[in-house]
Amino acid sequence: MMTEVGIEARPIEIPNGLPYVYGEISSGKAGAKTVLFYNHYDVQPPDPLQEWKFPPFGAEVHDGVVYARGVADNKGNIIARLNAIEAFIATVGDVPVNLKFMFEGDEEISSPNISSFTTQNKELLKSDVAIWSGRPVDAEGRPIVSLGNKGLLYVELRAKGAATDVHSMEAPILVNPAWRLVWALATLKGPEEKVLIDGFYDNLKPFTKEELELIEKTPFDEDERKKDREIESFLLGASGSSLKTNLLTKPTCNICGFVGGYIGRGAKTIVPSESTVKLDFRLLPNQDPDEVLQKLKTHLARHGFQDIQVEVLGKMPPSRTPLANKYVDTVVKSMEKLLGKPAVIWPNCPGSSPRYAIERLGIPVIDTGGCHSYVFSRIHSPNENITVDGYMRGMKATATLINSFGDLR
Amino acid sequence: MMTEVGIEARPIEIPNGLPYVYGEISSGKAGAKTVLFYNHYDVQPPDPLQEWKFPPFGAEVHDGVVYARGVADNKGNIIARLNAIEAFIATVGDVPVNLKFMFEGDEEISSPNISSFTTQNKELLKSDVAIWSGRPVDAEGRPIVSLGNKGLLYVELRAKGAATDVHSMEAPILVNPAWRLVWALATLKGPEEKVLIDGFYDNLKPFTKEELELIEKTPFDEDERKKDREIESFLLGASGSSLKTNLLTKPTCNICGFVGGYIGRGAKTIVPSESTVKLDFRLLPNQDPDEVLQKLKTHLARHGFQDIQVEVLGKMPPSRTPLANKYVDTVVKSMEKLLGKPAVIWPNCPGSSPRYAIERLGIPVIDTGGCHSYVFSRIHSPNENITVDGYMRGMKATATLINSFGDLR
Repeated sequence: MMTEVGIEARPIEIPNGLPYVYGEISSGKAGAKTVLFYNHYDVQPPDPLQEWKFPPFGAEVHDGVVYARGVADNKGNIIARLNAIEAFIATVGDVPVNLKFMFEGDEEISSPNISSFTTQNKELLKSDVAIWSGRPVDAEGRPIVSLGNKGLLYVELRAKGAATDVHSMEAPILVNPAWRLVWALATLKGPEEKVLIDGFYDNLKPFTKEELELIEKTPFDEDERKKDREIESFLLGASGSSLKTNLLTKPTCNICGFVGGYIGRGAKTIVPSESTVKLDFRLLPNQDPDEVLQKLKTHLARHGFQDIQVEVLGKMPPSRTPLANKYVDTVVKSMEKLLGKPAVIWPNCPGSSPRYAIERLGIPVIDTGGCHSYVFSRIHSPNENITVDGYMRGMKATATLINSFGDLR
Repeated sequence: MMTEVGIEARPIEIPNGLPYVYGEISSGKAGAKTVLFYNHYDVQPPDPLQEWKFPPFGAEVHDGVVYARGVADNKGNIIARLNAIEAFIATVGDVPVNLKFMFEGDEEISSPNISSFTTQNKELLKSDVAIWSGRPVDAEGRPIVSLGNKGLLYVELRAKGAATDVHSMEAPILVNPAWRLVWALATLKGPEEKVLIDGFYDNLKPFTKEELELIEKTPFDEDERKKDREIESFLLGASGSSLKTNLLTKPTCNICGFVGGYIGRGAKTIVPSESTVKLDFRLLPNQDPDEVLQKLKTHLARHGFQDIQVEVLGKMPPSRTPLANKYVDTVVKSMEKLLGKPAVIWPNCPGSSPRYAIERLGIPVIDTGGCHSYVFSRIHSPNENITVDGYMRGMKATATLINSFGDLR
């Protein structure tokens, strides 16, 4: 398809992963900017199949809505971008900027090879700006422009006791691995939510005054969210700007899962043989996952928990393109003009994404798009969909961005 | 069977449980002592059936060993006692003490009705001394005489968050119920193993100097136990008399099970919706389970954990007959004479037992027997067994005790 629309394209094989697809179009103009588009072509499994109203790989259109696995995340975005290029060339004849495309096949399994891929292909990927896989518009139809993601360190801590569960009458003489983890965890973070690992907050790159102001202005419907989560209040009673600041700017230390001993119904009197806890740390620039891991291990040893084993289950560095970057302004203005509404700018997203792998090449990375709405697109779930209108919006967004970058000198 | 051997016996129905079986024989002598024997006729399920070498309900004898579910715990003990009575009457003609028998059918489900049964039948059960269901001899063939049990309070603590597990990018704004439990637990007990609930140790009845000396002398093969448990050391590095003192005299706060969030293989990034922990407290005289429960609730509220729900899954008061009680001396001497070895006296067992329900009637309760050996009897497990020799020893123990009590004035 890329070749058909006029892109010089080829797969790039990598060890232990699905190939990247790389493509480019030269503008032929001296001094033209180079724009890199990132997308991914892999999807989540379509299960549970019985919950789909229409076949997950049928791409059926009903009442102006396209239903298909990947249509919102992220194949629809790829095709909208390719269609935009096709239309652009058919209409204008050429492109005002050099275009590069990097499509990944392992995003849904946390992009295990993206760091080595971008490092090994640094020259090939060299660009002035990168546009990430494509943010939806928000519930009010406002364009979203996202400038950063939290990083991730995912570890499993394991404590061991006797070879088997033992009658709890021996509790006074046996090490209880669940207690070991409880005490270790309680040294990592207290109810005031501050992470107590020495140096955890050391490398944090401060947000600028402008970035913090944007975060405080981010639309966030607290009542809607509370209703959806069935909760009466947010953590520590936060609300308004403090709630949004917490969500977008705080690194975390979160228990994803804890298990040890008897977990069935009723009572069983044992000292567990083993216990594990899964923790994810969401990190902000410039917290490095490897450094945080080392600090965690040092912390555990210093607090007397040398017996606790640490296994790493995932790592991803954080990323942030400064709000002050000139391409941000270009993207915001062009998206606002296209959609006729003020952009919602996120200096930082609460989740994680591998865009650090491009950013570390010195390329600003901006995520925006406009293909579909948040509320109904059901990413990763049955009945994933976008609207036909949203699809057209996504094409226009790509064309608009190309034009805007073409105007830059 | 009780009637056949000369006991006046009848079932006593109770609401919501299996009937107790009560029986008595009057000695006909003025001033004779009254001895109450407690046993239970219920057993654990025989599963897993395929692991039995012989049918669990066949009571087959092979090489001097009887294999059957309940033969060691506790039907064998009942029948040995009844056979002893039969032989006693056949040989001597009458009994030198008044005998009472109380056989329970719900012991294996923690004797939920024993407290109301003994309270309602206080007059019927009135005795000078009670002999409990029958301790085995130890690995060296020494008689064991046990004078007390720890009590039990079993609770489940539950913390709740959002209605479902939520993507962990929301960790900065959602209450995490697993963290709530971790922090609450860390206020209950620290790594030094002291329970931090206000007043937890308040009512502890001290052990006498003589009791503590006995505990320090209790045989305990540390290397054997460590090998069996596959551990390198005991809790807090305890050894020798401190290890035995910890095991027999310390009340505990033990995590039996902890679960919350994702507990499968690999990583899943969520904030758990709910988390629970099962705790058992082993209590010593005079810690009352209801009082400890109230102190626990007060503690949680005082430390800011009003959100944590407490459900009681089990309660049993502790018990202890003083070493100085005159019947203890009678039992120890007669068992030592019978077996020709010094008795191992446990002022307190590490586990729990419902003998408090008799003790609270003002009756000293002593557990001894001699039917089988610890090492091979496999209580609650496949191939439960006793030796024929051990069975004979159990009969003789009953007869010896009756004779010894008959000599008391």
